[in-house]
Amino acid sequence: MDSLQETTAMDETLDPPDWADVQALSHRIIDAAVGYLRDVRDRPVWREMPAEVRTFFNAPMPREPAPIADVYGDVARNVMAYPMGNIHPRFWSWYMGSSNFTGALGDFLAAIQGSNLGGGNHAAGLMDSQVVNWCKEMVGFPASAGGTLVSGGSMANIIGLTVARNAKAGVDVRERGVGAIPRPLRFYASDQVHSCHRKAMEALGLGNRALQRVSTDSDLRIDVDALRTAIAEDRAAGFKPACIIGTAGTVNTGAIDDLQALAALAAEEDLWFHVDGCIGALIAIAPQNRSLVAGIEQAHSIALDPHKWLHAPFEAGCALVRDASAHRNTFAVTPEYLESTPRGLASGQWLHDYGLQTSRGFRALKIWMALREHGVEKFGRLIDQNIAQARHLTGLIQAEPALELTAPTTINIVCFRHRLAGAYEERLKAFNTEIMLRLQEQGIATLSDTTVHGRHCLRAAITNHRTRRDDLDLLVCETLRIGKEIAAAAPSD
Amino acid sequence: MDSLQETTAMDETLDPPDWADVQALSHRIIDAAVGYLRDVRDRPVWREMPAEVRTFFNAPMPREPAPIADVYGDVARNVMAYPMGNIHPRFWSWYMGSSNFTGALGDFLAAIQGSNLGGGNHAAGLMDSQVVNWCKEMVGFPASAGGTLVSGGSMANIIGLTVARNAKAGVDVRERGVGAIPRPLRFYASDQVHSCHRKAMEALGLGNRALQRVSTDSDLRIDVDALRTAIAEDRAAGFKPACIIGTAGTVNTGAIDDLQALAALAAEEDLWFHVDGCIGALIAIAPQNRSLVAGIEQAHSIALDPHKWLHAPFEAGCALVRDASAHRNTFAVTPEYLESTPRGLASGQWLHDYGLQTSRGFRALKIWMALREHGVEKFGRLIDQNIAQARHLTGLIQAEPALELTAPTTINIVCFRHRLAGAYEERLKAFNTEIMLRLQEQGIATLSDTTVHGRHCLRAAITNHRTRRDDLDLLVCETLRIGKEIAAAAPSD
Ligand SMILES: Cc1ncc(COP(=O)(O)O)c(C=O)c1O
Ligand SMILES: Cc1ncc(COP(=O)(O)O)c(C=O)c1O
Repeated sequence: MDSLQETTAMDETLDPPDWADVQALSHRIIDAAVGYLRDVRDRPVWREMPAEVRTFFNAPMPREPAPIADVYGDVARNVMAYPMGNIHPRFWSWYMGSSNFTGALGDFLAAIQGSNLGGGNHAAGLMDSQVVNWCKEMVGFPASAGGTLVSGGSMANIIGLTVARNAKAGVDVRERGVGAIPRPLRFYASDQVHSCHRKAMEALGLGNRALQRVSTDSDLRIDVDALRTAIAEDRAAGFKPACIIGTAGTVNTGAIDDLQALAALAAEEDLWFHVDGCIGALIAIAPQNRSLVAGIEQAHSIALDPHKWLHAPFEAGCALVRDASAHRNTFAVTPEYLESTPRGLASGQWLHDYGLQTSRGFRALKIWMALREHGVEKFGRLIDQNIAQARHLTGLIQAEPALELTAPTTINIVCFRHRLAGAYEERLKAFNTEIMLRLQEQGIATLSDTTVHGRHCLRAAITNHRTRRDDLDLLVCETLRIGKEIAAAAPSD
Repeated sequence: MDSLQETTAMDETLDPPDWADVQALSHRIIDAAVGYLRDVRDRPVWREMPAEVRTFFNAPMPREPAPIADVYGDVARNVMAYPMGNIHPRFWSWYMGSSNFTGALGDFLAAIQGSNLGGGNHAAGLMDSQVVNWCKEMVGFPASAGGTLVSGGSMANIIGLTVARNAKAGVDVRERGVGAIPRPLRFYASDQVHSCHRKAMEALGLGNRALQRVSTDSDLRIDVDALRTAIAEDRAAGFKPACIIGTAGTVNTGAIDDLQALAALAAEEDLWFHVDGCIGALIAIAPQNRSLVAGIEQAHSIALDPHKWLHAPFEAGCALVRDASAHRNTFAVTPEYLESTPRGLASGQWLHDYGLQTSRGFRALKIWMALREHGVEKFGRLIDQNIAQARHLTGLIQAEPALELTAPTTINIVCFRHRLAGAYEERLKAFNTEIMLRLQEQGIATLSDTTVHGRHCLRAAITNHRTRRDDLDLLVCETLRIGKEIAAAAPSD
């Protein structure tokens, strides 16, 4: 074993040669991070990257090492300085939470421990199940339900829809595939359904056509009569109605389908009832508004999204399935190399039996730490607060003749536009888009835009624990100011 | 606006009332984390949780707040103290990396910035694409290829197989589903294929039966002649052969299929060639062993796994697809609320157009920081080091009459068992399982077990930047010691 000696000497590791250096640098990183969040209000919500920053990201794969302090310097300069902006109090684009410091510590500790939550008998695995249990409690699901933490709402919906597909297929679809299903399955959702459901239908081999989009009323809620008719017509045409997807909080306007009516209809028609609660499921913990999602507890499966209204740092979604064995039967496989043992590390449960991942990160920790620190009641109040803020903004818009509301405000999403005398759709769209872009480029606030029942509009989605009411007052003032600015510069026609 | 005043006063936030407190606590957390990794070698690799720790995780949803220092105390006591063990130098179970401190800082910073990598014009999005580009460079893929970072190898395989399905379906499968495919598709892999492919086939609606398991030779590599025959037979029977899945590093024994032969056969038969390189793709950067994966650069798609041999903290997988437009055409949907704008935050690329997630975390940062710090060449040397260590262990086993190798060692996985005079399969399995459990319970080392070509065995998967050769010497000594202990206590028969 002469060679042993020789090669032991060359054993390399990723651990630092001097831990004290890394420790000192980490303290600096902590201090910068604290300042970064503490002072976020004083910075622009977003800014354009200069050309040299863009170029920085074209560098090829690094072959040689670099001092970790330099690497961090590059990150501070080129990455931290040009954020998306969703941690800012005036970020109201798209739909996402705004993270939190405790959650970041949770992600750090999870990475330090490095555990793989695919399964096994260790503490992280137990905490993962505990957080799933807490999610059940929040939405009123029984403790016996199944559930799993996933990468986000899209995956949570895929989990629910896969269980629905397999439960309703009428054949062993795991073994034989969708091609063996005698009567093609049909899923139903409103025309406001999130795009991830289309992607799910496509991925699951059911095809986009199998997702019937049912019309919505003026409140953007699914038309339950139209849905009933669609189901009957499909049955008559030889399809097999399989699943109703109710949305608790649509991405466009925050509309909440009549979940009780959908639950009743699903029961009547023997369909699976899935609720996409990525936006609104957690309203169930908000004391002033929880009645808005009444009926959610009757679903067969629910997708909810801790990286939205629990402000968990990305990524954290959660799928709940009332019938835990239907859940497990959809995904479990146990090959020899993953067999359980009577004792030891492999004697725990296999958490990967409830979804599509094998290795799984410890995303439970960041959720757990923030829930313990603040308590669920505070998260409930924060949800009520965002909804109250959206109503406040709605009031400001309604009180201002230059602005108009383009959809009813149900929860925390406000759709509106700036009027422009004599302008039609296309010009209005260009005008409002320009307002949106200048608000952003001037670092004031970010909105997004969308089209609701054919009309383009701006959209403020207030899922933000840093927003204050005066931020919304500012939004209205600045929207009017920029509106005037653009109108004044435009050639009148 | 009387109510405005009133409610401004009640605005709550998740930000701490006193940032200085959080800063001080964070310094303590850093110090503990440094100690945790620095001293990991001195702790047992794994230990059983006492009953009170298990009970701790049964607590219901916390309604009231708790001081963050107490919350951290609970995490330190109940979570950090009972890890899975994969950061330990003598953890060789299943197949996973061992994380690293820099990666943990990356996850922390990603969570502090909180950006959503679904898309948009911001620095994190550019870095995400850069890391994908680096992955292409590592495996010899062209810069024009598509790719995306995902939750892990299972999802990376799903991405590749979905593109393969859609590219080979011969109908618009996104729109019409798998049921509209005229001749049922067939996918091929060896009988050593990872279980995530079965899950993928099931999820994609193709069904487990559509995945043909082809026999393997004594080296556990796919039998290319048998594969050719299977393809011909399927064609004759009216199936449509669609995709060959080659494995670069099987989970059981680390066998590497003949990728060049598979690429040639796929080309001949006009099939998609997907490589599951979760274990072995990155051997392409290892100077002494890269020839083992020659041919990988000819694949149509590759799954690789930075949370394995790049030791990124969970989760980080990567899917690469040679034809970027085939990749995008499989997943892209652009609803109104996600439309791009000419300028501003929404003018960036939509990274969610390349996979199943909408919101996406900033998993690129942890990979990027560690690659910059150490350089790709060092990661290549670490891979060679683990392979050399596996060969060293193989040599020790072969030199020891009480032990036998049960499969050839190709890379970093060693399959072996302790002999037991006169014992047959079942008794041997019980004996070796007991050795495995005692190694674990005594905190010495973790192995896993599996069954290779019908024979049960122990399995050391050395994907660990902390392992040294003397750790493997210890494993052999302790295995022999425990083997003697058990044999001595057993009633002789
Ligand atoms: C109603 C709805 N469903 C699903 C999703 C997808 O969630 P995620 O982005 O976490 O995948 C969203 C995202 O905004 C949503 O608004
Ligand atoms: C060959 C192979 N493919 C795929 C996977 C799945 O990877 P992940 O656990 O990252 O999902 C593994 C995991 O060990 C593997 O060994």
